[in-house]
Amino acid sequence: MKTFTDLTEKQLSRTERYSGPLYQVYSDDVLLPNGHTSVREVIEHVDGVAVLPLDENNNVLTVTQYRYVFGKPLLEIPAGKLDPGEDPYTGGLRELREETGAVPGVYESLGRIIPAPGCYSEILHLYLARDLKMETQDLDPDEFLNVERIPFDEMVRRCMEGEVEDAKTVAAVLKAKILLGL
Amino acid sequence: MKTFTDLTEKQLSRTERYSGPLYQVYSDDVLLPNGHTSVREVIEHVDGVAVLPLDENNNVLTVTQYRYVFGKPLLEIPAGKLDPGEDPYTGGLRELREETGAVPGVYESLGRIIPAPGCYSEILHLYLARDLKMETQDLDPDEFLNVERIPFDEMVRRCMEGEVEDAKTVAAVLKAKILLGL
Repeated sequence: MKTFTDLTEKQLSRTERYSGPLYQVYSDDVLLPNGHTSVREVIEHVDGVAVLPLDENNNVLTVTQYRYVFGKPLLEIPAGKLDPGEDPYTGGLRELREETGAVPGVYESLGRIIPAPGCYSEILHLYLARDLKMETQDLDPDEFLNVERIPFDEMVRRCMEGEVEDAKTVAAVLKAKILLGL
Repeated sequence: MKTFTDLTEKQLSRTERYSGPLYQVYSDDVLLPNGHTSVREVIEHVDGVAVLPLDENNNVLTVTQYRYVFGKPLLEIPAGKLDPGEDPYTGGLRELREETGAVPGVYESLGRIIPAPGCYSEILHLYLARDLKMETQDLDPDEFLNVERIPFDEMVRRCMEGEVEDAKTVAAVLKAKILLGL
Protein backbone atom coordinates (compact mmCIF):
# COMPACT_ATOMS: atom_id res chain seq x y z
CA MET A 1 0.00 0.00 0.00
CA LYS A 2 1.38 3.41 -1.00
CA THR A 3 1.57 6.21 1.56
CA PHE A 4 2.24 9.87 0.89
CA THR A 5 3.69 12.32 3.40
CA ASP A 6 2.51 15.40 1.53
CA LEU A 7 -0.80 15.40 -0.33
CA THR A 8 -0.84 19.13 -1.07
CA GLU A 9 -1.80 20.42 -4.50
CA LYS A 10 -0.51 23.93 -5.23
CA GLN A 11 -2.38 26.44 -7.38
CA LEU A 12 -0.38 27.59 -10.41
CA SER A 13 -3.03 29.65 -12.17
CA ARG A 14 -6.78 30.25 -12.23
CA THR A 15 -9.10 30.91 -15.17
CA GLU A 16 -12.71 31.98 -14.69
CA ARG A 17 -15.03 29.90 -16.88
CA TYR A 18 -18.44 31.15 -15.78
CA SER A 19 -19.85 33.62 -13.32
CA GLY A 20 -23.55 33.39 -12.56
CA PRO A 21 -25.93 34.49 -9.83
CA LEU A 22 -25.38 31.34 -7.75
CA TYR A 23 -21.75 30.44 -8.33
CA GLN A 24 -18.52 30.96 -10.21
CA VAL A 25 -16.70 28.23 -12.10
CA TYR A 26 -12.91 28.23 -12.39
CA SER A 27 -10.40 25.86 -13.85
CA ASP A 28 -7.07 25.97 -12.06
CA ASP A 29 -3.72 24.56 -13.11
CA VAL A 30 -2.24 22.83 -10.08
CA LEU A 31 1.05 21.22 -9.11
CA LEU A 32 0.64 17.66 -7.81
CA PRO A 33 2.80 16.06 -5.09
CA ASN A 34 4.76 14.15 -7.76
CA GLY A 35 5.68 17.32 -9.66
CA HIS A 36 3.16 16.72 -12.44
CA THR A 37 0.63 19.37 -13.31
CA SER A 38 -3.11 18.83 -13.55
CA VAL A 39 -6.33 20.81 -13.82
CA ARG A 40 -8.86 21.24 -11.00
CA GLU A 41 -12.34 22.51 -11.81
CA VAL A 42 -13.72 24.54 -8.94
CA ILE A 43 -17.27 25.71 -8.33
CA GLU A 44 -17.30 28.54 -5.81
CA HIS A 45 -20.70 28.56 -4.08
CA VAL A 46 -21.70 30.40 -0.90
CA ASP A 47 -22.14 28.33 2.24
CA GLY A 48 -25.53 27.18 3.41
CA VAL A 49 -27.49 26.14 6.44
CA ALA A 50 -30.09 23.46 7.14
CA VAL A 51 -32.30 23.01 10.19
CA LEU A 52 -34.03 19.89 11.49
CA PRO A 53 -37.17 21.19 13.24
CA LEU A 54 -38.69 18.75 15.73
CA ASP A 55 -42.03 19.60 17.32
CA GLU A 56 -43.29 18.63 20.78
CA ASN A 57 -44.81 15.41 19.37
CA ASN A 58 -41.53 14.41 17.70
CA ASN A 59 -42.70 15.32 14.23
CA VAL A 60 -40.22 16.76 11.77
CA LEU A 61 -41.33 19.85 9.85
CA THR A 62 -40.32 19.00 6.30
CA VAL A 63 -40.24 21.09 3.16
CA THR A 64 -41.09 19.65 -0.23
CA GLN A 65 -39.98 21.69 -3.22
CA TYR A 66 -39.44 21.09 -6.88
CA ARG A 67 -35.79 20.37 -7.60
CA TYR A 68 -35.42 21.40 -11.20
CA VAL A 69 -32.10 19.58 -11.74
CA PHE A 70 -33.79 16.28 -10.86
CA GLY A 71 -37.17 17.06 -12.43
CA LYS A 72 -39.15 16.16 -9.32
CA PRO A 73 -40.11 17.45 -5.88
CA LEU A 74 -37.81 16.37 -3.04
CA LEU A 75 -38.62 16.14 0.63
CA GLU A 76 -35.99 17.96 2.68
CA ILE A 77 -35.46 19.81 5.91
CA PRO A 78 -35.64 23.62 5.71
CA ALA A 79 -32.42 25.04 4.29
CA GLY A 80 -30.95 27.84 2.28
CA LYS A 81 -27.97 29.91 1.38
CA LEU A 82 -26.40 32.28 3.89
CA ASP A 83 -26.88 35.96 3.15
CA PRO A 84 -23.66 37.96 2.66
CA GLY A 85 -21.97 38.37 6.03
CA GLU A 86 -24.60 36.29 7.83
CA ASP A 87 -23.42 33.79 10.44
CA PRO A 88 -24.76 30.23 10.12
CA TYR A 89 -26.58 30.28 13.48
CA THR A 90 -28.64 33.33 12.49
CA GLY A 91 -29.09 32.12 8.93
CA GLY A 92 -30.59 28.86 10.16
CA LEU A 93 -33.13 30.67 12.32
CA ARG A 94 -34.01 32.92 9.36
CA GLU A 95 -34.46 30.06 6.89
CA LEU A 96 -36.51 28.04 9.40
CA ARG A 97 -38.81 30.98 10.05
CA GLU A 98 -39.16 31.96 6.38
CA GLU A 99 -39.91 28.46 5.11
CA THR A 100 -42.01 27.03 7.97
CA GLY A 101 -42.92 29.88 10.33
CA ALA A 102 -41.27 28.03 13.23
CA VAL A 103 -39.24 29.81 15.91
CA PRO A 104 -37.36 27.44 18.23
CA GLY A 105 -36.87 27.71 21.99
CA VAL A 106 -34.02 25.18 21.82
CA TYR A 107 -31.53 25.39 18.97
CA GLU A 108 -28.22 23.55 18.77
CA SER A 109 -25.56 22.68 16.23
CA LEU A 110 -25.44 19.29 14.51
CA GLY A 111 -22.05 20.10 12.98
CA ARG A 112 -21.32 20.88 9.38
CA ILE A 113 -21.05 18.82 6.23
CA ILE A 114 -19.32 19.22 2.89
CA PRO A 115 -21.80 18.02 0.23
CA ALA A 116 -19.39 17.47 -2.66
CA PRO A 117 -15.74 17.86 -1.64
CA GLY A 118 -14.32 17.15 -5.09
CA CYS A 119 -15.36 20.29 -6.90
CA TYR A 120 -18.06 22.26 -5.09
CA SER A 121 -17.07 24.71 -2.34
CA GLU A 122 -20.29 24.77 -0.30
CA ILE A 123 -20.16 23.98 3.42
CA LEU A 124 -23.54 23.26 5.00
CA HIS A 125 -24.10 24.03 8.67
CA LEU A 126 -26.67 21.79 10.37
CA TYR A 127 -28.86 22.65 13.35
CA LEU A 128 -31.50 20.94 15.46
CA ALA A 129 -34.47 23.11 16.45
CA ARG A 130 -36.93 22.12 19.19
CA ASP A 131 -39.56 23.72 21.43
CA LEU A 132 -41.13 25.32 18.35
CA LYS A 133 -43.46 28.31 18.40
CA MET A 134 -45.35 28.78 15.16
CA GLU A 135 -45.33 32.28 13.71
CA THR A 136 -45.91 33.29 10.10
CA GLN A 137 -44.22 31.77 7.08
CA ASP A 138 -42.46 34.30 4.83
CA LEU A 139 -41.91 32.93 1.34
CA ASP A 140 -40.63 34.91 -1.61
CA PRO A 141 -43.31 35.43 -4.28
CA ASP A 142 -41.39 33.03 -6.54
CA GLU A 143 -40.71 30.40 -3.84
CA PHE A 144 -42.95 27.33 -3.85
CA LEU A 145 -42.78 24.69 -1.17
CA ASN A 146 -45.09 22.60 0.97
CA VAL A 147 -44.54 22.09 4.70
CA GLU A 148 -45.55 18.79 6.25
CA ARG A 149 -45.23 17.25 9.72
CA ILE A 150 -43.81 13.74 9.56
CA PRO A 151 -43.17 11.55 12.63
CA PHE A 152 -39.46 11.33 13.43
CA ASP A 153 -39.49 7.51 13.31
CA GLU A 154 -41.01 7.64 9.85
CA MET A 155 -38.30 10.09 8.72
CA VAL A 156 -35.62 7.73 10.03
CA ARG A 157 -37.24 4.88 8.10
CA ARG A 158 -37.39 6.93 4.90
CA CYS A 159 -33.73 7.95 5.28
CA MET A 160 -32.63 4.37 5.96
CA GLU A 161 -34.63 2.95 3.06
CA GLY A 162 -33.55 5.59 0.57
CA GLU A 163 -36.93 7.28 0.17
CA VAL A 164 -35.36 10.47 1.48
CA GLU A 165 -32.41 11.12 -0.84
CA ASP A 166 -31.30 14.61 0.14
CA ALA A 167 -27.89 14.22 1.81
CA LYS A 168 -28.28 17.02 4.36
CA THR A 169 -31.64 15.63 5.47
CA VAL A 170 -30.21 12.11 5.87
CA ALA A 171 -27.23 13.44 7.83
CA ALA A 172 -29.30 15.64 10.14
CA VAL A 173 -32.02 13.05 10.82
CA LEU A 174 -29.56 10.25 11.60
CA LYS A 175 -27.36 12.54 13.72
CA ALA A 176 -30.43 13.58 15.70
CA LYS A 177 -31.54 9.97 16.16
CA ILE A 178 -28.18 9.05 17.69
CA LEU A 179 -27.82 12.31 19.66
CA LEU A 180 -31.30 12.18 21.20
CA GLY A 181 -31.51 8.40 21.49
CA LEU A 182 -34.82 8.46 19.61
CA MET B 1 -49.41 28.34 5.69
CA LYS B 2 -49.44 28.29 1.89
CA THR B 3 -49.83 25.02 0.02
CA PHE B 4 -49.27 24.40 -3.66
CA THR B 5 -50.84 21.61 -5.69
CA ASP B 6 -48.32 21.83 -8.52
CA LEU B 7 -44.67 22.63 -7.82
CA THR B 8 -43.42 21.87 -11.32
CA GLU B 9 -40.98 24.21 -13.05
CA LYS B 10 -40.98 23.88 -16.84
CA GLN B 11 -37.87 24.36 -18.99
CA LEU B 12 -38.28 27.13 -21.56
CA SER B 13 -34.73 27.26 -22.92
CA ARG B 14 -31.20 26.13 -22.11
CA THR B 15 -27.88 27.91 -22.64
CA GLU B 16 -24.55 26.16 -22.17
CA ARG B 17 -22.22 28.30 -20.06
CA TYR B 18 -19.24 25.98 -19.63
CA SER B 19 -18.24 22.50 -20.65
CA GLY B 20 -15.26 20.98 -18.85
CA PRO B 21 -13.85 17.52 -18.25
CA LEU B 22 -15.90 16.99 -15.06
CA TYR B 23 -19.16 18.78 -15.76
CA GLN B 24 -21.23 21.06 -17.90
CA VAL B 25 -22.86 24.24 -16.66
CA TYR B 26 -26.16 25.46 -18.11
CA SER B 27 -28.49 28.29 -17.31
CA ASP B 28 -32.09 27.52 -18.14
CA ASP B 29 -35.06 29.83 -18.38
CA VAL B 30 -37.94 28.16 -16.56
CA LEU B 31 -41.64 28.74 -16.06
CA LEU B 32 -42.66 28.80 -12.38
CA PRO B 33 -46.01 27.55 -11.02
CA ASN B 34 -47.28 31.15 -10.75
CA GLY B 35 -46.59 31.87 -14.43
CA HIS B 36 -43.48 33.95 -13.75
CA THR B 37 -40.20 33.06 -15.40
CA SER B 38 -36.92 32.53 -13.62
CA VAL B 39 -33.42 31.20 -14.27
CA ARG B 40 -32.07 27.89 -12.97
CA GLU B 41 -28.34 27.25 -13.06
CA VAL B 42 -27.64 23.57 -13.59
CA ILE B 43 -24.37 21.68 -13.16
CA GLU B 44 -24.55 18.36 -15.00
CA HIS B 45 -22.13 15.96 -13.30
CA VAL B 46 -21.92 12.18 -13.71
CA ASP B 47 -23.20 10.05 -10.86
CA GLY B 48 -20.88 8.56 -8.29
CA VAL B 49 -20.51 5.75 -5.82
CA ALA B 50 -19.12 5.49 -2.29
CA VAL B 51 -18.38 2.36 -0.27
CA LEU B 52 -18.09 1.93 3.49
CA PRO B 53 -15.58 -0.92 3.97
CA LEU B 54 -15.74 -2.60 7.37
CA ASP B 55 -13.13 -5.20 8.26
CA GLU B 56 -13.49 -8.23 10.55
CA ASN B 57 -12.43 -6.14 13.57
CA ASN B 58 -15.04 -3.44 12.81
CA ASN B 59 -12.48 -1.00 11.47
CA VAL B 60 -13.44 1.30 8.61
CA LEU B 61 -10.96 1.56 5.75
CA THR B 62 -10.79 5.30 5.17
CA VAL B 63 -9.19 7.32 2.43
CA THR B 64 -7.55 10.68 3.09
CA GLN B 65 -6.93 12.85 0.07
CA TYR B 66 -6.24 16.49 -0.61
CA ARG B 67 -9.42 18.33 -1.47
CA TYR B 68 -8.18 21.24 -3.51
CA VAL B 69 -11.41 23.24 -3.25
CA PHE B 70 -11.06 23.29 0.55
CA GLY B 71 -7.26 23.52 0.66
CA LYS B 72 -6.86 20.58 3.03
CA PRO B 73 -6.93 16.79 3.16
CA LEU B 74 -10.28 15.25 4.06
CA LEU B 75 -10.96 11.86 5.57
CA GLU B 76 -13.62 10.03 3.53
CA ILE B 77 -14.78 6.58 2.58
CA PRO B 78 -13.59 5.27 -0.81
CA ALA B 79 -15.59 6.83 -3.64
CA GLY B 80 -15.47 7.95 -7.21
CA LYS B 81 -17.29 8.73 -10.38
CA LEU B 82 -18.99 6.01 -12.38
CA ASP B 83 -17.34 5.16 -15.68
CA PRO B 84 -19.54 5.67 -18.78
CA GLY B 85 -22.18 2.93 -18.83
CA GLU B 86 -21.01 1.44 -15.54
CA ASP B 87 -23.65 0.36 -13.02
CA PRO B 88 -23.24 1.65 -9.45
CA TYR B 89 -22.83 -1.84 -7.92
CA THR B 90 -19.84 -2.63 -10.16
CA GLY B 91 -18.44 0.89 -9.88
CA GLY B 92 -18.39 0.64 -6.10
CA LEU B 93 -16.44 -2.63 -6.21
CA ARG B 94 -14.01 -1.06 -8.69
CA GLU B 95 -13.42 2.10 -6.65
CA LEU B 96 -13.02 0.10 -3.43
CA ARG B 97 -10.44 -2.17 -5.02
CA GLU B 98 -8.55 0.63 -6.76
CA GLU B 99 -8.32 2.90 -3.72
CA THR B 100 -7.83 0.36 -0.90
CA GLY B 101 -7.16 -3.05 -2.47
CA ALA B 102 -10.15 -4.52 -0.63
CA VAL B 103 -12.50 -7.05 -2.23
CA PRO B 104 -15.63 -7.76 -0.18
CA GLY B 105 -17.38 -11.06 0.43
CA VAL B 106 -20.50 -9.25 1.60
CA TYR B 107 -21.64 -6.15 -0.27
CA GLU B 108 -25.00 -4.41 0.11
CA SER B 109 -26.69 -1.15 -0.79
CA LEU B 110 -27.04 1.69 1.71
CA GLY B 111 -29.31 3.60 -0.65
CA ARG B 112 -28.45 6.70 -2.59
CA ILE B 113 -28.07 10.35 -1.71
CA ILE B 114 -28.29 13.60 -3.60
CA PRO B 115 -25.42 15.80 -2.36
CA ALA B 116 -26.65 19.20 -3.53
CA PRO B 117 -30.20 19.08 -4.93
CA GLY B 118 -30.38 22.78 -5.75
CA CYS B 119 -27.99 22.94 -8.66
CA TYR B 120 -25.74 19.89 -8.92
CA SER B 121 -27.00 16.80 -10.72
CA GLU B 122 -24.84 14.13 -9.07
CA ILE B 123 -26.52 11.14 -7.40
CA LEU B 124 -24.26 9.13 -5.09
CA HIS B 125 -24.89 5.43 -4.57
CA LEU B 126 -23.79 4.10 -1.18
CA TYR B 127 -22.68 0.55 -0.34
CA LEU B 128 -21.53 -1.34 2.72
CA ALA B 129 -18.68 -3.81 2.14
CA ARG B 130 -17.71 -6.50 4.67
CA ASP B 131 -15.77 -9.77 4.82
CA LEU B 132 -12.84 -8.02 3.13
CA LYS B 133 -10.01 -9.80 1.32
CA MET B 134 -7.02 -7.56 0.72
CA GLU B 135 -5.61 -7.59 -2.79
CA THR B 136 -3.52 -4.91 -4.47
CA GLN B 137 -4.32 -1.21 -4.56
CA ASP B 138 -4.42 0.28 -8.07
CA LEU B 139 -4.01 4.06 -8.00
CA ASP B 140 -3.58 6.27 -11.04
CA PRO B 141 -0.07 7.77 -11.26
CA ASP B 142 -1.57 11.17 -10.44
CA GLU B 143 -3.82 9.94 -7.60
CA PHE B 144 -2.58 10.53 -4.05
CA LEU B 145 -4.41 9.18 -1.03
CA ASN B 146 -3.65 7.47 2.25
CA VAL B 147 -5.64 4.49 3.52
CA GLU B 148 -6.13 4.08 7.24
CA ARG B 149 -8.08 1.65 9.45
CA ILE B 150 -10.19 3.49 12.01
CA PRO B 151 -12.44 1.74 14.57
CA PHE B 152 -16.11 2.06 13.63
CA ASP B 153 -17.02 3.60 17.02
CA GLU B 154 -14.35 6.24 16.49
CA MET B 155 -15.75 7.01 13.02
CA VAL B 156 -19.23 7.43 14.50
CA ARG B 157 -17.81 9.80 17.12
CA ARG B 158 -15.98 11.83 14.46
CA CYS B 159 -19.14 12.05 12.33
CA MET B 160 -21.28 13.08 15.30
CA GLU B 161 -18.80 15.70 16.52
CA GLY B 162 -18.19 17.20 13.07
CA GLU B 163 -14.58 16.05 12.70
CA VAL B 164 -15.66 14.08 9.64
CA GLU B 165 -17.27 16.65 7.36
CA ASP B 166 -17.74 14.75 4.11
CA ALA B 167 -21.49 14.27 3.67
CA LYS B 168 -21.36 10.83 2.01
CA THR B 169 -19.11 9.53 4.78
CA VAL B 170 -21.43 10.85 7.50
CA ALA B 171 -24.48 9.38 5.76
CA ALA B 172 -22.90 5.96 5.18
CA VAL B 173 -21.39 5.62 8.67
CA LEU B 174 -24.59 6.61 10.47
CA LYS B 175 -26.74 4.43 8.22
CA ALA B 176 -24.44 1.48 8.95
CA LYS B 177 -24.54 2.15 12.68
CA ILE B 178 -28.34 2.00 12.69
CA LEU B 179 -28.55 -0.90 10.21
CA LEU B 180 -26.03 -3.10 12.01
CA GLY B 181 -26.90 -1.98 15.54
CA LEU B 182 -23.23 -1.19 16.17
